[in-house]
Amino acid sequence: MSWIYFVDLFGTLVFSISGVITAIHKKFDLVGTLVIGFVTAIGGGTIRDLLIGRTPVGWLNDRNYFIAILGGYIVAYLFRARILGLRRSMFLFDTIGIGLFTVLGIDVSLSYGLNIEICLLMGVISACFGGVLRDVLTNEIPLIFRKEIYASACLIGGVVYLVLLQYIENENVAIVGSIVTVIVIRYLSVKNSWSLNFRFPS
Amino acid sequence: MSWIYFVDLFGTLVFSISGVITAIHKKFDLVGTLVIGFVTAIGGGTIRDLLIGRTPVGWLNDRNYFIAILGGYIVAYLFRARILGLRRSMFLFDTIGIGLFTVLGIDVSLSYGLNIEICLLMGVISACFGGVLRDVLTNEIPLIFRKEIYASACLIGGVVYLVLLQYIENENVAIVGSIVTVIVIRYLSVKNSWSLNFRFPS
Amino acid sequence: MSWIYFVDLFGTLVFSISGVITAIHKKFDLVGTLVIGFVTAIGGGTIRDLLIGRTPVGWLNDRNYFIAILGGYIVAYLFRARILGLRRSMFLFDTIGIGLFTVLGIDVSLSYGLNIEICLLMGVISACFGGVLRDVLTNEIPLIFRKEIYASACLIGGVVYLVLLQYIENENVAIVGSIVTVIVIRYLSVKNSWSLNFRFPS
Repeated sequence: MSWIYFVDLFGTLVFSISGVITAIHKKFDLVGTLVIGFVTAIGGGTIRDLLIGRTPVGWLNDRNYFIAILGGYIVAYLFRARILGLRRSMFLFDTIGIGLFTVLGIDVSLSYGLNIEICLLMGVISACFGGVLRDVLTNEIPLIFRKEIYASACLIGGVVYLVLLQYIENENVAIVGSIVTVIVIRYLSVKNSWSLNFRFPS
Repeated sequence: MSWIYFVDLFGTLVFSISGVITAIHKKFDLVGTLVIGFVTAIGGGTIRDLLIGRTPVGWLNDRNYFIAILGGYIVAYLFRARILGLRRSMFLFDTIGIGLFTVLGIDVSLSYGLNIEICLLMGVISACFGGVLRDVLTNEIPLIFRKEIYASACLIGGVVYLVLLQYIENENVAIVGSIVTVIVIRYLSVKNSWSLNFRFPS
Repeated sequence: MSWIYFVDLFGTLVFSISGVITAIHKKFDLVGTLVIGFVTAIGGGTIRDLLIGRTPVGWLNDRNYFIAILGGYIVAYLFRARILGLRRSMFLFDTIGIGLFTVLGIDVSLSYGLNIEICLLMGVISACFGGVLRDVLTNEIPLIFRKEIYASACLIGGVVYLVLLQYIENENVAIVGSIVTVIVIRYLSVKNSWSLNFRFPS
């Protein structure tokens, strides 16, 4: 499982960077940006853990998540200008992150014996609600509700994961397949300006 | 208890509809509206469960709540135009819902041996905080804090429930008495444009 | 420990006053102001308790916190005009409150065997997130992220507490030393218009 653990920490670091950059743009101070980095990185998994009763929540007992978040904070400040130029890489890392967070959220929920549709929901919550909390705390309408195929990509990635797990029975293959699915969906959606804001005519 | 269970599911469905309609008005996409429907429907009970340590929270282990929320989501999209015309019925269903959610919240809290005033508070939280979360996520100041006798109706309905339970010792009568109280208060308040925005002169 | 308990209740009352006053300014109704008073007073400790798995959360089983919050609510309405004139005293009480909440948050977390940096974080959360929730519910960008050395003062006060506890081994001295530190930092920061909004040139 060790490669998963490292990708998880890496996803945490990337989410922390994304939160800190957002907060810098909002002119938050040094402590405020740190808080937003934290919340973005661990918010989704924390809500999942609270809902399923897994307390103390995971990151409290593993110093490495703390270090990953601090690392993201420092990287965000040091390479702020350059990170904006690396938008494409950040997008990729972020998408790998949400794909993996979805899968890990599903796994944790499965291990708690929850129904399959609840596990899927928990996967999406794990991946998306860090960003939702970031947007609530910076007084924005959460982005994922409006402008991006974000939650939908996680949902489909989660379904792919469960299907692969069922029929191929190799967790690594299922994880990679799921993450690739999320990447492809988000890549196509951005390239083609898709969005799910389908609305019935009023 | 089975009629209570069905009314509870029905309240969940109505709350889901109310959340989805709000989110459609805010131009959320298909996933965003679903999330808001979910949060509106189970937010209050979830916060109550987290506070009193009842995890995994109730709806995680009962598929019917999931189905009720999805049902509300579909109904909201299919009959969106007509629902706005049914404002009066929606108001009635919504009011029955918050009345019942108040009573159920009090019951759960009583079964955890909490003080009577905390049980009342938990009842109000169960009924109102789904709507509060909906408003926070759609970047509005929560409605119940400003424009409606909403939380107050729940509070009074909760007191009526506890009094009836004490003196009549018939739970069904106490529940119905409490819900009728909530309906009457809200009906009178809307009819007479009451509101509790009593303020001392500055 | 009894003086700590009374200062804790007093801090709860002061936080309740601050929340109610904020909500009155936002033209919330009588129930809305009460909810904001509650959330401001117990929000930080509640989030801490949820994260570390200490449920039911502390204030549910101790009627005195309920009374302290109601007391703050009544005081806020009765002496509203005068409280604004007592800004200096309120600032002092509020600062004593966050200092003590930081220390109590650290203590609770230490008793759960958490890592030292997590305990510090929990101290800051205990002291600051009541105010964060207040600002989110009143649709403001949380103040502590932008305009005041607030979280930073708690962080430094927390470090002072841990150092004193380690080397002097007298809890009362450590608590007082920590609170005095928080007061001095906030006093100096307001007097000199410090703020941590240090930003790299764009």
